[in-house]
Amino acid sequence: MVEDPKRSAEFVEALAKGIAVIECFDAAHPDMTLSEIARRVGLSPAAARRSLITLSALGYVGSVGKRFFLKPKVMTLGSGFYFAARIDEILLPELRQIVETHGDAASIAMLDGHDVIYIAHHSTQRARRATAVVGARYPAHATSLGRVLLAGLPKTELERYFARVEPKALTSRTVTDKNALRALIDEAGERGYATTVDQLDYGITALAVPIRNAEGRVTAAVNSSGYSGLVSPEQMVTDRLGDLRVAAGRISAAAARTPALSAALNG
Amino acid sequence: MVEDPKRSAEFVEALAKGIAVIECFDAAHPDMTLSEIARRVGLSPAAARRSLITLSALGYVGSVGKRFFLKPKVMTLGSGFYFAARIDEILLPELRQIVETHGDAASIAMLDGHDVIYIAHHSTQRARRATAVVGARYPAHATSLGRVLLAGLPKTELERYFARVEPKALTSRTVTDKNALRALIDEAGERGYATTVDQLDYGITALAVPIRNAEGRVTAAVNSSGYSGLVSPEQMVTDRLGDLRVAAGRISAAAARTPALSAALNG
Repeated sequence: MVEDPKRSAEFVEALAKGIAVIECFDAAHPDMTLSEIARRVGLSPAAARRSLITLSALGYVGSVGKRFFLKPKVMTLGSGFYFAARIDEILLPELRQIVETHGDAASIAMLDGHDVIYIAHHSTQRARRATAVVGARYPAHATSLGRVLLAGLPKTELERYFARVEPKALTSRTVTDKNALRALIDEAGERGYATTVDQLDYGITALAVPIRNAEGRVTAAVNSSGYSGLVSPEQMVTDRLGDLRVAAGRISAAAARTPALSAALNG
Repeated sequence: MVEDPKRSAEFVEALAKGIAVIECFDAAHPDMTLSEIARRVGLSPAAARRSLITLSALGYVGSVGKRFFLKPKVMTLGSGFYFAARIDEILLPELRQIVETHGDAASIAMLDGHDVIYIAHHSTQRARRATAVVGARYPAHATSLGRVLLAGLPKTELERYFARVEPKALTSRTVTDKNALRALIDEAGERGYATTVDQLDYGITALAVPIRNAEGRVTAAVNSSGYSGLVSPEQMVTDRLGDLRVAAGRISAAAARTPALSAALNG
């Protein structure tokens, strides 16, 4: 909308601060005091207090004693996107089919800065874990989805990513060396897919392919994952790559026919 | 935090306006122009523009031409609550067990004004539909969960609900008469459960029971639902009520041991 919106006189700091307060809660910080929140967001206690008063009045934040926590109403903010983009109607059936054919789990994600954000997920949920949930974010460098999405970036954006990213090890096997990571991303770009083994967490082997928009730009990615003890990445490529590419093609076609999903994927 | 936060000098209007802009998008309004957004939220075009500039800069809103839409990053706002309250670890296993035993779908919801908000959902997802999604909101009067939650309100709050609610018909069978609805809610309170048939949508029959906190107050509800053509509410009560009550008891106990979930449910 504007050249540098952060500097725009119309940028509303109070809105950005309030949203940062919502964003600062997570599994490791489920409830916090005013001063903890202020410190975590980098706000003055007075500014944090005004945000918390407002978010409490609106029903997004609650408090017990001196500790604040998120209320379930914050989930309605995300569901606006979910329903507007028709994630459940268009993307979920594709993921279900992948899971019915190959088992385990399948996800669709987009890039947001250095992270991927899951916009759809389906899994057999066999005991193990309920890791990936819609709206969850994970570091792009450690996921098959992220490597395919990074491979799809214009060169200048990929350079900017590498100039700024500090890849963290999430397991002892996570590739954090930038040169090695760059080689893997280039390879993903050349082959049109990426595989990962135990990069995000132990036990997860995954295969991802890009989803392209009408102009051919990579806007999202779809993957299929399994348990590292039971499936090798080579086996996954042999068994699942074809089906994943078919799914990616169908999703591209469906998005092209669905303005809201197309806008969300292209935006 | 304060007696009347809406009137507090510390209430930040700009934050409330920005959040209202996010909330105004839904399946029926997936993308809108500036003036459509301003009209829908009840803002001046200038205020709506400032909100949109800010939300765009923060990555929550995108635009193509003159139309604005939500970006997937808004889903990360809701995932903060989801992970902080450990929804996936504590609530989902209970829902999975209900669905494994009785089939179809199971959900947990809380009351938010005149609506219920789904905080956990599991379903066999057999073709039919992917209706209930975490963060989704539905009118309380038309759901088994909502009737149980309304029955658990303190008398004065239930009076206030009836003074303000305008129950809408979502199917030709939805009970919208306030006296009839009041009788059903009283009955749900006396029996400790509610059943609904084709109230929210055709084909959905459901049974819900309350989830109580350590003080005995109803803070959430859990249900089991099936296809109206295949199961009657009487059959559901016979087959599923016991299991639902066991699940509700276990969820109460788990919440009491889990500060973040307990806070979220009590808040």
